[in-house]
Amino acid sequence: MLSSVRIKQLKSLHQKKFRRQENHFLLEGNRLISQALSADAPLIEVWMTQKNMDSDFGRNNLQKFEEKKIPFSVAPDKIIRQMSDSLNDQGIIALTPIPIYEKYDNPPSKAIYLDGISDPGNMGTILRTAAWFGIKSIFRTPECVDPFNSKVVRSAMGAHFYFSHFDAIPEEKILGDYTKAGMEILGADMNGSPIQSLNLEVDKRWILILGNEAHGIGELAQTFITSTISIPGIDGMESLNVSVAGGILLYTLTS
Amino acid sequence: MLSSVRIKQLKSLHQKKFRRQENHFLLEGNRLISQALSADAPLIEVWMTQKNMDSDFGRNNLQKFEEKKIPFSVAPDKIIRQMSDSLNDQGIIALTPIPIYEKYDNPPSKAIYLDGISDPGNMGTILRTAAWFGIKSIFRTPECVDPFNSKVVRSAMGAHFYFSHFDAIPEEKILGDYTKAGMEILGADMNGSPIQSLNLEVDKRWILILGNEAHGIGELAQTFITSTISIPGIDGMESLNVSVAGGILLYTLTS
Repeated sequence: MLSSVRIKQLKSLHQKKFRRQENHFLLEGNRLISQALSADAPLIEVWMTQKNMDSDFGRNNLQKFEEKKIPFSVAPDKIIRQMSDSLNDQGIIALTPIPIYEKYDNPPSKAIYLDGISDPGNMGTILRTAAWFGIKSIFRTPECVDPFNSKVVRSAMGAHFYFSHFDAIPEEKILGDYTKAGMEILGADMNGSPIQSLNLEVDKRWILILGNEAHGIGELAQTFITSTISIPGIDGMESLNVSVAGGILLYTLTS
Repeated sequence: MLSSVRIKQLKSLHQKKFRRQENHFLLEGNRLISQALSADAPLIEVWMTQKNMDSDFGRNNLQKFEEKKIPFSVAPDKIIRQMSDSLNDQGIIALTPIPIYEKYDNPPSKAIYLDGISDPGNMGTILRTAAWFGIKSIFRTPECVDPFNSKVVRSAMGAHFYFSHFDAIPEEKILGDYTKAGMEILGADMNGSPIQSLNLEVDKRWILILGNEAHGIGELAQTFITSTISIPGIDGMESLNVSVAGGILLYTLTS
């Protein structure tokens, strides 16, 4: 039985301040929790509605919760809805620690740098795509939306549990290190050269910068770029969505 | 000056029923309205806050509104906010007719079929990407989210004004026609063959099916597929977001 103090505490995890204080965040929804289980995320506890427990998902997962010794319990619909940040909550919420990532010291060989990504859905989708293509090092400017924001977490579909590096590091530091190491610093920009014409040496190490939805890559980060790349399209449309552009560039860079 | 009856009528356009009845929809935000102007969308009227009018965007666009003889006026912030469907409204709203698209009779050579896309952001992002890659024929199952929903319109960034065909047509009809015409019916599915191994004949005509976010392509549409294609990724992650997958496939199919 969830006490009202406990519910309040769990709800507070929708705010960045309390997530950082408690070092925990919430996972909501069947697919996300199922992905977290596949990724061996150390879930602390799971609450679900009776309806969710009786569903196909519920039946499939109860066994996994038992195997992995993850405490789970049924809570009233109203309580789950209170704890949920989503309008379409699916009646299941899990509590999990913020993963411990590797400390950054040297520039990893394939990485992404998020420069002021502000939309939680875009941030989450980029993380999901990065994990899909096996990119394990994600850095960001401190101006980005918090990556443990519940909308980001929902869109990322468990990507948070696949990364080695996942850190906010200022431009000068991280891009400075890539420059010193002689690595490629790729900037996605609609005025860049077509990605098809990019000829990276085999085993060339790179970091791909994706910029803010409205303003693109910031002035400071731009000074570090070694190649500006774009995805050619028809005249008229102004740009691609940043998570789609990122997806196409990562596909091209990794295949 | 906007009367309360007029405000109510404009607000009603956030509901599908009234959009279809009036044959109008609303555009919100600077970038979207700027894109609509580039695409020569026949805006009927524009309302903005004083702050928006005094902004860089405002100054740039007032001239265009005048040139194109589009009536525009300043409205109180409160009224704009009332008419807006977005929490982050940018203080500008335009009224525009639902475009008149070509009537579908024969299967066009490059097309997309949206099978039960339910998330407005995904729908809008797919439309934006399709327009970017010059795909002018977009069909959908009637189960899809309404493409004139304001969240779809916001994510699509003016794509609505670039299409030739844009229609809800049942699977049997449209995919039946592609089958009869001997065209390629491509289905995006995580269990398909890697897109890299797809060898379309030059000038081969195709339609790409993108399925529902949770359930993929429906059973009926599946029976028509000639090639199932996928984007290889690492083990562990379950799938890519449908708008990212669609973006990568369209990039590959058109470049």
